[in-house]
Amino acid sequence: MDRRSFLKNSALGGTAAAATTLAAPAYAQGNRTLTMVTTWGRGLAGVFDSAQKVAEDITSMSDGQLTVDVKAAGELVGAFEVFDAVTAGQADMYHAADYYFVGQHPAYAFFTSVPFGMTAQELVNWYHHGNGAALHDELGQIFGLKSFLAGNTGAQAGGWFRKEIAGPEDFNGLKFRMPGLGGKALGKLGASVQNLPGAEVYQALASGAIDGTEWIGPWADEKAGFQEITKTYYTAGFHEPGAGLSLATNRDVFDSLTPAQQKIIEIASASTHQWNLAQFLNNNGAALQRLQSSGVKTLEFPDSVWDAFGRASQEVHDENMGDELYKKVYDDYQVSLKASSGWIVKSDGAYRAQRDRVLG
Amino acid sequence: MDRRSFLKNSALGGTAAAATTLAAPAYAQGNRTLTMVTTWGRGLAGVFDSAQKVAEDITSMSDGQLTVDVKAAGELVGAFEVFDAVTAGQADMYHAADYYFVGQHPAYAFFTSVPFGMTAQELVNWYHHGNGAALHDELGQIFGLKSFLAGNTGAQAGGWFRKEIAGPEDFNGLKFRMPGLGGKALGKLGASVQNLPGAEVYQALASGAIDGTEWIGPWADEKAGFQEITKTYYTAGFHEPGAGLSLATNRDVFDSLTPAQQKIIEIASASTHQWNLAQFLNNNGAALQRLQSSGVKTLEFPDSVWDAFGRASQEVHDENMGDELYKKVYDDYQVSLKASSGWIVKSDGAYRAQRDRVLG
Repeated sequence: MDRRSFLKNSALGGTAAAATTLAAPAYAQGNRTLTMVTTWGRGLAGVFDSAQKVAEDITSMSDGQLTVDVKAAGELVGAFEVFDAVTAGQADMYHAADYYFVGQHPAYAFFTSVPFGMTAQELVNWYHHGNGAALHDELGQIFGLKSFLAGNTGAQAGGWFRKEIAGPEDFNGLKFRMPGLGGKALGKLGASVQNLPGAEVYQALASGAIDGTEWIGPWADEKAGFQEITKTYYTAGFHEPGAGLSLATNRDVFDSLTPAQQKIIEIASASTHQWNLAQFLNNNGAALQRLQSSGVKTLEFPDSVWDAFGRASQEVHDENMGDELYKKVYDDYQVSLKASSGWIVKSDGAYRAQRDRVLG
Repeated sequence: MDRRSFLKNSALGGTAAAATTLAAPAYAQGNRTLTMVTTWGRGLAGVFDSAQKVAEDITSMSDGQLTVDVKAAGELVGAFEVFDAVTAGQADMYHAADYYFVGQHPAYAFFTSVPFGMTAQELVNWYHHGNGAALHDELGQIFGLKSFLAGNTGAQAGGWFRKEIAGPEDFNGLKFRMPGLGGKALGKLGASVQNLPGAEVYQALASGAIDGTEWIGPWADEKAGFQEITKTYYTAGFHEPGAGLSLATNRDVFDSLTPAQQKIIEIASASTHQWNLAQFLNNNGAALQRLQSSGVKTLEFPDSVWDAFGRASQEVHDENMGDELYKKVYDDYQVSLKASSGWIVKSDGAYRAQRDRVLG
């Protein structure tokens, strides 16, 4: 990743900006439709829901001034084209997992999730009360975007395997589906990592084209039907411990809105983050109970595997440290994670352990 | 607690309703100031902040149509008079911890926190994706209120003690400050439980009038200065594992607002819940580090004490089960807690334990 590609993108944003600015005076008064492109198939559990929820809340709160029109992946542009569509002004906003855009800038990974990184709660602490939102903004400035956290899947499951994992050597040669920096880390253990779109994963696992896959968590995984193929399910994963989703607006479009409309987008996004995380966690709880009743065996990776995940994850981070902004975000993120985690372990963590012990 | 007191309050709400409805047509068009009374001293860390945050967001998003005027405790009515002020139409909304109103109905405890109950995340899962919000509404109907979760302190600390606690017998005769159902449970262990307002706690602990106190968590506790009096701090507590704060509007006032304004209040409240929880957790992390550096000893209660807390908490719940609505809320809450917790322990919980082990 070199800086020139950012500058190129930035210049592109600048051109789009000029075009948008010319039209801006027309926006300020009357009613207006904002086009939201997404990386999600229409109706995809949880993730499309959060795009739809934030769009509906913006529309309702603005009392008809703004109508957000949600496009599923492929309806206006392809899933992974949404970033360029919004920076170029072809669409007004996107809803996506920002780690899809590590090709645009590797620091986008932090605003979804990084291996051995923050849980969803730690991410929100950093975002709203540490420097998270400001760093998201700094990144957005490069591309002419104004971004907000607007969804979260919670900690993603370790995934579905055809055989149990006894040690890190079992990943050697394993054909496994995992995107993002987590996938890069698995590759360091010798896995043959695949990054298949959601729609192709079931068939690949069923046919033996892959030996295993992670997806999201019990609710979405059950809908995908992986329990029909194998009953071996690792619940905790290292790769996405709290995957944030983002709403990003073209910055010139955002700047053309009234302060009230801007605040509506900001607050609807924040509220949707909480709503979506709760949706995943609530539905995961019920789905886990169903999966267990239907014979799925839930397992945890042995410590030796977690140790290997830890080493591999650090190697992946180290490879990106040559980028100044990546390192700046990484350093700030680690300080916040450590402070957040210290208290959460001693309060919420210790309480839950005792509650579960006492109540059984 | 008998039903007649609810009916009396309900009738009161009805009278207020009639008066408010007469004025309603005037509201629908022009700009309007809504008075928010609170149970918080002006500027009180975290809790007053959340009242101010939700008020500012409602004001900003409504583009001048609504201005929320926040009154600290005592400025219009006393802290514990806010409930009656809003049901009677003397104020438009309150921001408070709903467990202050267990005298009005014991089921209000669930919308703040109950001993051995939900963490903040489990509460949100139940509230927004289980039956929590609907049950809050059912309770509000009795009193002519429309309520929303609009803040959270996170899991509250076990508290400050002059001497370490070796077993449940050490609570016998201990003069300890703890409000709510948690305080009732401590009483069953023989503690002499005090419910002092925040402003009096420091002096009571310093003078020896009480032997110990819980307050909120490291950030607020440090501001209160308890570390100047004793260095013995129990971090995890059983009594308020995720204390929600509520915004409640007079229902007739709420019904007189436009759908966009109603949605603004709903979404601003939800967003503030997340914002405030993150504020407490983020600041608790940093404060814990400072307290530890200054010589405060952080401890956990031994298992025998947690076992006693568990038994006492269940006794307190059992005493309220004669109330039909309390039992209805309790039963629904327990089902949701169990499902939520099952997944969270296996994902977020197992991940955090491994991350802390691997990264040290």
